[in-house]
Amino acid sequence: MSQARIVYLNGEFLPYAEAKVPVMDRGFLFADGIYEVSAVLSGRLVDNAAHLARLDRSLGEIGIRNPHTGAEWLALQTDLVARNGLGEGLLYMQVTRGVFERDFAFPPAGTPPTVMMFTQAKTIGANPLAETGAAIVTVPDLRWKRRDIKSVALLAQVIAKQQAAEAGVAEAWMVEDGAVTEGSSSTAFIVAGDRIVTRPLSHALLPGITRLAVMRLAEEEGLTVEERLFSVEEAMGADEAFYTSASSFVMPVVRIDGTTVGDGRPGPLSRRLRALYLAMARETLE
Amino acid sequence: MSQARIVYLNGEFLPYAEAKVPVMDRGFLFADGIYEVSAVLSGRLVDNAAHLARLDRSLGEIGIRNPHTGAEWLALQTDLVARNGLGEGLLYMQVTRGVFERDFAFPPAGTPPTVMMFTQAKTIGANPLAETGAAIVTVPDLRWKRRDIKSVALLAQVIAKQQAAEAGVAEAWMVEDGAVTEGSSSTAFIVAGDRIVTRPLSHALLPGITRLAVMRLAEEEGLTVEERLFSVEEAMGADEAFYTSASSFVMPVVRIDGTTVGDGRPGPLSRRLRALYLAMARETLE
Repeated sequence: MSQARIVYLNGEFLPYAEAKVPVMDRGFLFADGIYEVSAVLSGRLVDNAAHLARLDRSLGEIGIRNPHTGAEWLALQTDLVARNGLGEGLLYMQVTRGVFERDFAFPPAGTPPTVMMFTQAKTIGANPLAETGAAIVTVPDLRWKRRDIKSVALLAQVIAKQQAAEAGVAEAWMVEDGAVTEGSSSTAFIVAGDRIVTRPLSHALLPGITRLAVMRLAEEEGLTVEERLFSVEEAMGADEAFYTSASSFVMPVVRIDGTTVGDGRPGPLSRRLRALYLAMARETLE
Repeated sequence: MSQARIVYLNGEFLPYAEAKVPVMDRGFLFADGIYEVSAVLSGRLVDNAAHLARLDRSLGEIGIRNPHTGAEWLALQTDLVARNGLGEGLLYMQVTRGVFERDFAFPPAGTPPTVMMFTQAKTIGANPLAETGAAIVTVPDLRWKRRDIKSVALLAQVIAKQQAAEAGVAEAWMVEDGAVTEGSSSTAFIVAGDRIVTRPLSHALLPGITRLAVMRLAEEEGLTVEERLFSVEEAMGADEAFYTSASSFVMPVVRIDGTTVGDGRPGPLSRRLRALYLAMARETLE
């Protein structure tokens, strides 16, 4: 971006260098906050209403008041995307329980939440990794027991993604009790014949927005969607594997812990679902 | 405090209102940081070398470089306590992986950690709650699997402490697989005859600094220290119960989920250990 980067913070659009939060912000001290990420294509938001709904749901689960209506969020988001001249990339949103003298229990009810958003330019649609397919590693799932809440308590995910980076790969799938839970920032899928398999929703994983959209597209294509647990071994032996997220859409997986999946190239169903998702996303931009 | 509050941030002593971190700080975005709290009595630090050692250990476990030697930390801590004219209370320290464009994996190795400290005035020695004893509630332990690391990913503890606050009590003990792990910001103990019982160290709980000091004092008093798991039911039926932390020292527990422990007053061993801890703390101030 040639223009100056602008960050939204508590009602103001600020130059990046001025966007700072007090050290007593509960996001900084306690990870007491929620976040969301929406993709941007052609300067407009992808599946954004679903992301705002999940934001609202996560906030509710930990008792933070959602400071904005959906219409207010969309207006602020649209404004921020425009101010940053963002064509393609990500819009990041974070809401914390606000600023108050450090004490574990919630601050007084009237304490205003901290609201922050920024954008990141990124090639998502024509991501070259989707052409070759991604290699991944598997790691233990160290996270807490409410992974359905999209909180900023992300240290376990940071450690997982760093293990992926040190292995020279793009993503880590997390494993618990012998089954894949999800990726460090994505939902895990495998393909067996004309069935696509992904873990059912529970407290063990995030209800992926792209996950849901891809499941719908798969069903429209006549594929069977099977929600059940699967192991790393099953994934290694599957016809295809892929992961989904707002920042990667549908990403074919071609190697798991060094073991080649299928013929080592993005599988036909993974490619088809990626194309369908991209087409759907472009048609429904907000 | 009548004087202006001063916060330490990255080499500077700043007025409280100016102590802010960029929104891209990994502490704010990812809970990618470590903290410690040392008590202050008579303007000096309690058992501080042990807190600095645990800080160093936690940082090492998640691959953040400790930016200071113990002597450097102590000089900064002492300076901050003096600038705030703190007689009694807490010194809070936090180190995060620093400021870098948001991405889960670690930033480049040269990225400087964020270092922040503040003080809080608080009555710890003559805390009136220690005279009546504390009531507590028990809650499910929702935390991640590396609770031996004192990270700022504290959302589960926030929720636990809020449940305590809503029940009108001071602390929540967290329970997993039928056994007490620890308090939301303390170590849990019970007393049975001349034995004091506390959970052995593992990844399931924090290696408490006050825990260790109290165990040593108990042994010097001829008590037997038994490190093993115990249930909520056993705690309710114990002769005494108490919890330890840097901010509460030794706090007698007189009610658990509404059930009276012992005769409902602080037990003799809990009181004795509190007095011994206070005496030891006052003798070894740094």
